[in-house]
Amino acid sequence: MESKRNLILVTNDDGVNAKGVKCLAQCAARFGDVVIVAPARPQSGMSSAITVGAPLRINEHEGFDGCRVFSVSGTPVDCVKLAMHTILPRRPDLLLSGINHGSNSGTAITYSGTMGAVMEGCMNGIPSIGFSLLHHSLKADFSLSIDFVADIVGKAVENPLPHWTSLNVNIPALVRPEGVRVCRAARGHWSEEYVRYLDPQANPFYWLTGRFVNMEPAATDTDEYWLGKKFISVVPVTPDQTLGACIPQFASIYDK
Amino acid sequence: MESKRNLILVTNDDGVNAKGVKCLAQCAARFGDVVIVAPARPQSGMSSAITVGAPLRINEHEGFDGCRVFSVSGTPVDCVKLAMHTILPRRPDLLLSGINHGSNSGTAITYSGTMGAVMEGCMNGIPSIGFSLLHHSLKADFSLSIDFVADIVGKAVENPLPHWTSLNVNIPALVRPEGVRVCRAARGHWSEEYVRYLDPQANPFYWLTGRFVNMEPAATDTDEYWLGKKFISVVPVTPDQTLGACIPQFASIYDK
Repeated sequence: MESKRNLILVTNDDGVNAKGVKCLAQCAARFGDVVIVAPARPQSGMSSAITVGAPLRINEHEGFDGCRVFSVSGTPVDCVKLAMHTILPRRPDLLLSGINHGSNSGTAITYSGTMGAVMEGCMNGIPSIGFSLLHHSLKADFSLSIDFVADIVGKAVENPLPHWTSLNVNIPALVRPEGVRVCRAARGHWSEEYVRYLDPQANPFYWLTGRFVNMEPAATDTDEYWLGKKFISVVPVTPDQTLGACIPQFASIYDK
Repeated sequence: MESKRNLILVTNDDGVNAKGVKCLAQCAARFGDVVIVAPARPQSGMSSAITVGAPLRINEHEGFDGCRVFSVSGTPVDCVKLAMHTILPRRPDLLLSGINHGSNSGTAITYSGTMGAVMEGCMNGIPSIGFSLLHHSLKADFSLSIDFVADIVGKAVENPLPHWTSLNVNIPALVRPEGVRVCRAARGHWSEEYVRYLDPQANPFYWLTGRFVNMEPAATDTDEYWLGKKFISVVPVTPDQTLGACIPQFASIYDK
């Protein structure tokens, strides 16, 4: 009797040529057949954006180790939607996004294209996990982290994630992290966010920068805390942003 | 003794020239001084996207009724960030986004630029509300809905929203809605999402379409249900996507 092999969709927001997506695909190959469908160009900061007013193109690239590779001329969410609609032979059993070049801890998940793809998979009932490395270059040696990534993927295959539940995994750029901790996202915001320039005609323009301000520096149950302790952080997250608990109170104010 | 007037930031995702943003600004003027900072071009479907690799421009436009109007060459979140960093004289007391031309009910909030701006305000501690009209044209007569909008804004001014809590308001395109109901977002997904075309060289391209499939058609506590009953829906939403309740269970699986 033939056992069904898992079909694993791998995507990212750094683009189809990023090292991180190939690394994640090689890791995923231990658990099934892998297809990469990633953006043709870098899409950092694209959150759950979709392309609504323009056409999209799909291109196939050279594969490796039995893994087919496609690019889509849009956002990470466009990649997931087109993969499921057009590219994949059937519904994937698992979606992995990343490995992002740079952290998506704390409130950064809101802007993350890596996690936008994860939310899209999750809404469609596909177990979905995003991975981010706390280093903008993948030249960083995180060789032993790869075993932790494989361990997390293996556990997600064995213990299917409930619908509307996905994982946001951040990895310190270390040869050997201390371990893995499930925790919550630190709440924070960005400060001093723009550098102002003058163009040659003396008209101003602005460029985003800034730094994350952890509003909960004393908390010991957040991803920022555990990453600071050199652990890999695993935050269970949901695309459903409803605050159910405050509905009765708000109903007493707003219902009419 | 001088009473401090509220400073209200109004933005949207349909762009600075959309009718909905002017309508919302006029409504907001009942409660304070209004400044519009909206995208220069339409940004539907941009979610919480930010512009990370390119400069941004700010332009001032002709104002009306004492309301100053600015455009930003980026996304709705860029508008909120630049408004707070550069354009506004001080931190706003309230952020209103919309009125969007088209619904943002159910799972659509994930992709909504209107709600992306709301989430940004909310993360920065500003009481923030998004408004969407269930009609792509604002030619629809929703004159009495405007009084409901003003009523909701007035209540939010009187009863400040807790930090990390914002409101997603959807409005049926009716002269007279039946009332207002606080409820949760219906869970769903999109189906049959792309139309395939061939370009003149016979290469395929794809265009996003599709329809929302409400996965909970029998539920009577969702925004989809109440909108179907001709009520305005008010969904309390948060930018913090952590699923705190499942952390202990997941810790037993993933911690190491």
